[in-house]
Amino acid sequence: MSLRLYDLAAADEARRFSPFCWRTRLALAHKGLTVETIPWRFTEKEVLRPSGSEKVPVLVDGTRWIAESSVIAHYLEETYPDRPSLFGGRVGEALTRFYGQWTDTVLHPGILRMIALDIQKHLHEKDRAYFRESREKRFGMTFEALVADRDQKLPAFRQSLTPLRMTLAAQKFLGGEEPLYADYTVFGAFQWARAISDFKLLASDDPIHAWRERMLGLFNGLAAHAVGYPVL
Amino acid sequence: MSLRLYDLAAADEARRFSPFCWRTRLALAHKGLTVETIPWRFTEKEVLRPSGSEKVPVLVDGTRWIAESSVIAHYLEETYPDRPSLFGGRVGEALTRFYGQWTDTVLHPGILRMIALDIQKHLHEKDRAYFRESREKRFGMTFEALVADRDQKLPAFRQSLTPLRMTLAAQKFLGGEEPLYADYTVFGAFQWARAISDFKLLASDDPIHAWRERMLGLFNGLAAHAVGYPVL
Repeated sequence: MSLRLYDLAAADEARRFSPFCWRTRLALAHKGLTVETIPWRFTEKEVLRPSGSEKVPVLVDGTRWIAESSVIAHYLEETYPDRPSLFGGRVGEALTRFYGQWTDTVLHPGILRMIALDIQKHLHEKDRAYFRESREKRFGMTFEALVADRDQKLPAFRQSLTPLRMTLAAQKFLGGEEPLYADYTVFGAFQWARAISDFKLLASDDPIHAWRERMLGLFNGLAAHAVGYPVL
Repeated sequence: MSLRLYDLAAADEARRFSPFCWRTRLALAHKGLTVETIPWRFTEKEVLRPSGSEKVPVLVDGTRWIAESSVIAHYLEETYPDRPSLFGGRVGEALTRFYGQWTDTVLHPGILRMIALDIQKHLHEKDRAYFRESREKRFGMTFEALVADRDQKLPAFRQSLTPLRMTLAAQKFLGGEEPLYADYTVFGAFQWARAISDFKLLASDDPIHAWRERMLGLFNGLAAHAVGYPVL
């Protein structure tokens, strides 16, 4: 088997910063699958054409092209059923969807408000205009204006993580004793931030911080060893 | 077997309005267990003494007293393993915790800001001072002040439900094709509101509204037939 993954890269092609691609990379590691990652930039939409998508992650498994992180996770679970489960069964897969929606609609926007300008600074030159224009339009202001008061916004951001914090104060992983795709889904957001920004999102005594350390260490430190900033 | 449940009641003892008790009642129904509910008021702490708790739900199963909704759910799953599972296995139980935390820390405070005064008006006389003093202290203002601008707060409240909405736009229940304890956990909040208030929390075309209808209909309309206001 030969697996390839189109993986969002910064100007430095070793710096991989898509939260969605991180979900997939950790899911592949969970399944014990080796993958060749191919650095990809936002504006390279043409190379993804066989997938029908214009965004990463896109996984190529032999002759099959699969796009979108949750579709890829489902594909891996179906295609490699004898390897460790990402969901713990069909019910677990259904229960995992809410984690994805919470991450996409609460966690990602909250983090992006903190690190948008840091992302912009790390982008490959050919991606800069695209990223700035599309995202500034979404927020209705420049990145500079968006992040100017990020220190003041930090308490509200941390407050928005309360359900995650209380869950991780009570159990080791979202999946219980072992990490599951729900963990990779949420963790991808923090790995995205770490790849691109030295802004301290979490207090050191936050249970989420301790969980993030556990996540960084999984699979021989797959996420910890990736190019990024130290997490303080 | 003889199961009894202490269940929070309003001045009208048939009006049962605890979101946590509703989790338990639906969990019992899911397990196919019959229960005798005992109306209970906030200030009747003494009768719960054998449970070690001062709050409901408290389940009495023969000689055993079990307090706290998630502890009760775990107890039911362990004690009645041959009946339909509330979690779909150990992983499902771990994945369910986040739903409880999200409900407790996002959904409940959001709803309470809308219906606090409606609750107050329905309480038994002996509970009124206790409830008003303890909750107004938490919010730092009177119920009247809290709910005065609820129409203005409604869009932000509905916005806070985005992860739930997007999940339920994609699947029938949080548990997938069939409801699970995660569904009962979240639904309890809406049943709480319905028991006590005619305020329209959800737009009619909201996927959460449609899911709530499905939840109201479960177990021969257990929740739908309970005393409360029509949901519009």
